[in-house]
Amino acid sequence: MKKGTKTKLMILQKSSNLFNQKGYMTATINDIMTETGLKKGGIYRHFSDKNSLMIEAFLFSANILKKHYEDKISIKTNGKEKLAAFIEGFIELINNEPLAGGCPIINASIEMDNLDNDDMLSHIQDSMKYLIQLLSEIIAKGQENGEFSTEVDAELNAVFILSSLEGALAMSKLFKDQSYVRNVANRIIDSHLI
Amino acid sequence: MKKGTKTKLMILQKSSNLFNQKGYMTATINDIMTETGLKKGGIYRHFSDKNSLMIEAFLFSANILKKHYEDKISIKTNGKEKLAAFIEGFIELINNEPLAGGCPIINASIEMDNLDNDDMLSHIQDSMKYLIQLLSEIIAKGQENGEFSTEVDAELNAVFILSSLEGALAMSKLFKDQSYVRNVANRIIDSHLI
Repeated sequence: MKKGTKTKLMILQKSSNLFNQKGYMTATINDIMTETGLKKGGIYRHFSDKNSLMIEAFLFSANILKKHYEDKISIKTNGKEKLAAFIEGFIELINNEPLAGGCPIINASIEMDNLDNDDMLSHIQDSMKYLIQLLSEIIAKGQENGEFSTEVDAELNAVFILSSLEGALAMSKLFKDQSYVRNVANRIIDSHLI
Repeated sequence: MKKGTKTKLMILQKSSNLFNQKGYMTATINDIMTETGLKKGGIYRHFSDKNSLMIEAFLFSANILKKHYEDKISIKTNGKEKLAAFIEGFIELINNEPLAGGCPIINASIEMDNLDNDDMLSHIQDSMKYLIQLLSEIIAKGQENGEFSTEVDAELNAVFILSSLEGALAMSKLFKDQSYVRNVANRIIDSHLI
């Protein structure tokens, strides 16, 4: 890997980590200079402005998350196992795995939804759509196999499950208590929600 | 009302509105000066620093929200009606009622959960506990009356319902599409979740 490419990757790793924990607007270029050990010019050689860095860092986090879910789900064969693998992958966020600060998609969503940043917002929307789609496909597959009820539309079910997990993760992080997201995850798996 | 009290109330109204939309860290004192038409000294006459203003503004928002739910719920008599009234009150957030920017409790929670601000965090925790408690009591009342199943603990149910609503509200705000939170609300009311 070229030195420039390596430096850019390092900036993305450190800044995405910082943005997901402190917030995109709260984390400053000075914070990123401290984290990376680079001067301002060393950062802006790779990104045209803070907004470009924010967007690339968000996509970097979103890709880590996508790979995390896909790795877990792809090795399972049926709908129930894939759903359990997705939920297991989701719960790991509370242990800062595969990245620190919780779900980068809901974090960025709540932070940016009232700010006038259409570029950033469209990437957050795409990532949330991806998550809903991933879960919808798992549920649809389970419905085809007769594992899940077909009473409720797969996508509506996906939105319901993802909403409850995202809300419960926020509570677990607020109270520093894993039981909120674990209880909701168990409820989804045990109950006749799907 | 004394002039000083009136000015303080105006600052709280304008700043709480701004904080809930832009974020507590993103909205600056300059933004608040613009909104209120006051100079910096005119703001800091009433609040010792930005953090005090953030905390008082958060509590101001939280109190508007509490009153909003209590007004809706108190006029209903049984558990099912009270639950429907709570959910109806929650959905109104998507129309910026009773305040702009969505649920101030989840917004502040996601923004502040990784920042080292224990004072602010303890107030957010108290407000989230209040919401969970309010919903738990409604469900417990419905269980006593035989309206709801006693299979699942009232508080676990409250956390599950509130999580799904908060997650769905975030999606509705992200996609500027009310159907996410409306579908989840309908699902809670129609299904055998409680």
